[in-house]
Amino acid sequence: MTENEEINIYIISDSVGGTANTLGRAAMAQFPEVNANVSAYPFIRGEDTLVSILEKAHKDNALILHTLISNNLNDIVAKFCQEHKLFCFDILNPVVQEIEHRSHQQALKKPGALHQLDDSYFNRISAIEFAVKYDDGRDPNGFLEADIVILGISRTSKTPLSMFLANQNYKVANLPLVPEAHIPDLLWQVDPKKIVGLTNDRKILNSIRRERMIAYGLNPETAYSRIDRIDEELAFAKELYEKLGCLVINVATKSIEETAAIIVNTLEINHNKQDF
Amino acid sequence: MTENEEINIYIISDSVGGTANTLGRAAMAQFPEVNANVSAYPFIRGEDTLVSILEKAHKDNALILHTLISNNLNDIVAKFCQEHKLFCFDILNPVVQEIEHRSHQQALKKPGALHQLDDSYFNRISAIEFAVKYDDGRDPNGFLEADIVILGISRTSKTPLSMFLANQNYKVANLPLVPEAHIPDLLWQVDPKKIVGLTNDRKILNSIRRERMIAYGLNPETAYSRIDRIDEELAFAKELYEKLGCLVINVATKSIEETAAIIVNTLEINHNKQDF
Repeated sequence: MTENEEINIYIISDSVGGTANTLGRAAMAQFPEVNANVSAYPFIRGEDTLVSILEKAHKDNALILHTLISNNLNDIVAKFCQEHKLFCFDILNPVVQEIEHRSHQQALKKPGALHQLDDSYFNRISAIEFAVKYDDGRDPNGFLEADIVILGISRTSKTPLSMFLANQNYKVANLPLVPEAHIPDLLWQVDPKKIVGLTNDRKILNSIRRERMIAYGLNPETAYSRIDRIDEELAFAKELYEKLGCLVINVATKSIEETAAIIVNTLEINHNKQDF
Repeated sequence: MTENEEINIYIISDSVGGTANTLGRAAMAQFPEVNANVSAYPFIRGEDTLVSILEKAHKDNALILHTLISNNLNDIVAKFCQEHKLFCFDILNPVVQEIEHRSHQQALKKPGALHQLDDSYFNRISAIEFAVKYDDGRDPNGFLEADIVILGISRTSKTPLSMFLANQNYKVANLPLVPEAHIPDLLWQVDPKKIVGLTNDRKILNSIRRERMIAYGLNPETAYSRIDRIDEELAFAKELYEKLGCLVINVATKSIEETAAIIVNTLEINHNKQDF
């Protein structure tokens, strides 16, 4: 491969293609120097459409990742790729076959089964609406109903983390901590095993907040970004977390996915909120 | 398998385990009558920990889905599963090996490479914050900066859809449509190819809104849930969508993932916002 050549990846699915897409991204993350040219073909349910995509993939010498549940479409891909020596990875069917074998039950073979508009789906939709409603301490009444209450000073990624957990079906409320602001009394009624306190490194906070001020066209040397102010906020948060006896996570080197995984595995909450 | 027996699924990853988790959910969705008992083991990077998980999996006769990038941990799983005849599906490495082969580059073999705190990550965090800030028509100034502007009457899943798209790195603003409320002038300055109008079936809206009223302890027969009111709102939205010339999606039988895939594949927006 010459330096500027790209790897062509075809994501083919009879539904959204979320599984294949995630796998493609995870694999490419291992090759920061390689460019991927990704073509996504969601909702592919007809033979003719599939064949024309495969012909295009052949011309592009593409690497094919697919989640096609129908035996028929699956066979078409397998046969085409064998004949034309194309790399193709069937992500879903080996697992589906193993479950069929173990359970002695036939798979539905229904495209988009993961995206049924069932109770679990509507619960997740409600959880996302809940997280937006109770974001940023808008209404402390959310604390008692929440599965998870997230606390943190400014720039500890409370909002994105709340939305990410909400998409996993958890009802999340978050509260920004400011030393001058009153901590809502309701917080003390929440089971500390449902609370997580976010913290961050002082230097990282200083740098993020300076950049934020610059982005707003303001002087980076405001009280908001000053180290002594940050230390005061961090000390205030630390003291509160100790009083509450809650889980504390330093997000300095963690993505929201990583922080969310730690929360779900550590807090005493229902671990099977996701529909399995 | 007797009726109440469960399939044990072990999700093992050196990072968050998102890919394996999505795959497990997609596979189980094909078996609505089968119960899965899912054990998630994220952040597994030590041999001893891995071996003790594998021993537990053996006792549980579990089906193992894993994304372990290290050759060493990978070999341990493969060997253990072969010796003990356990089903194990290595999701990541076949694809990584094929990319190595094509690109003549070595994979980083770095756990959590997908979750680097790089520019793309921080852009996504900003996109989520943007979506919360410009949710529910809070500030029409978001329209011009947004990648996607979502319009819709009440109960067309604007908010969850916005959050889902934001997590794919798109900046999304949404505006609830109410016949009595003024449409912000700024909307007419937005490229219609960036706008999507959501609609729904009148009977579904009637049923959802009645249920919502009941949940609030109110009389289900309010103006909000009356069919003539819903028809009025739908007609108002339809007229606006036609004037704008925007994409229209009926969400009646679509999940937010499906609606999002249609939007990303139809609108004239940057299709590679996700980090590939």
